[in-house]
Amino acid sequence: MTQQLTEIQLAYIAGFIDCDGSILAQTIQKSDYVLKHQIRVSIVFYQQTRRKYSLLKIQEELGMGTIRDKPNGMSELSIIGQQNVEILLRLLKPFLRMKQKQANLVLLIIEQLRSTKKSLKISQMPHEQSRLNFLDICHLVDQVCDLNYSKSHTITVDFVTQRFQDLKWIQK
Amino acid sequence: MTQQLTEIQLAYIAGFIDCDGSILAQTIQKSDYVLKHQIRVSIVFYQQTRRKYSLLKIQEELGMGTIRDKPNGMSELSIIGQQNVEILLRLLKPFLRMKQKQANLVLLIIEQLRSTKKSLKISQMPHEQSRLNFLDICHLVDQVCDLNYSKSHTITVDFVTQRFQDLKWIQK
Repeated sequence: MTQQLTEIQLAYIAGFIDCDGSILAQTIQKSDYVLKHQIRVSIVFYQQTRRKYSLLKIQEELGMGTIRDKPNGMSELSIIGQQNVEILLRLLKPFLRMKQKQANLVLLIIEQLRSTKKSLKISQMPHEQSRLNFLDICHLVDQVCDLNYSKSHTITVDFVTQRFQDLKWIQK
Repeated sequence: MTQQLTEIQLAYIAGFIDCDGSILAQTIQKSDYVLKHQIRVSIVFYQQTRRKYSLLKIQEELGMGTIRDKPNGMSELSIIGQQNVEILLRLLKPFLRMKQKQANLVLLIIEQLRSTKKSLKISQMPHEQSRLNFLDICHLVDQVCDLNYSKSHTITVDFVTQRFQDLKWIQK
């Protein structure tokens, strides 16, 4: 955050996200990850490229995010990474009206990812337990996708569970 | 307005309008009107019917507007009438980022309609002058429609000019 955002700025940005934004979580297959999957969280603002200036303004206010022009005449401002998403969601939460559930779930996902990662690092947790914890997080991701009526959500908790069973990482 | 709106509420509503709203003006044929046409101004909020609660909340905050469910799964909150639209636009203007031009033009239309109507009433103005003034307003309506990329805009200033010439109300 390059500067302190006012409540007026946050309220406007919340109105924008509620209408033309998304608070997202997704599970991605990653062979080089300990648990073979990565959980990504992001906040995306959509706008027609002819009104890209509105995305540039929000990017400037937030002091973060990447803008991408798509071939279909749309542009997107994406905030990715747990730390940035967490900071922004905590600020926006009081002002969101339609996507508050997604915000709460994504904050919970970030929190649980952090504690699972910490446990893995200091080897406090048996492997099976950390895998089960990860499946709990995948279940939260499913809930976010359901709230967003996501059509491209294929790596569901059932999918990851099956994969973990195939790898004999967890019991059937 | 049933209550005083806070700047935070106004900023949120401005974000909503910029993304999922419209600030509209249209010319309509009305045989019983002195100038055979009516100019309508309105502010419309759109949202999927499953998120209609967001429109109900704004309706409650504004203390005005009518909600309509459409067969395509969308709902609309419409604020109509020069007086209501003027009050709301004056409040929202400082917070709008994408539809400020439409707001300024619609406020100008309302102002010019008021002064034309007043002149007609006290017969201060020759008929031809009031008709030319009306055409100026139709030209502003065209500008609002252009900004909104309106596809259903058929009663343009050219259309009304032709009609006034056919009626021999103005010279060619």
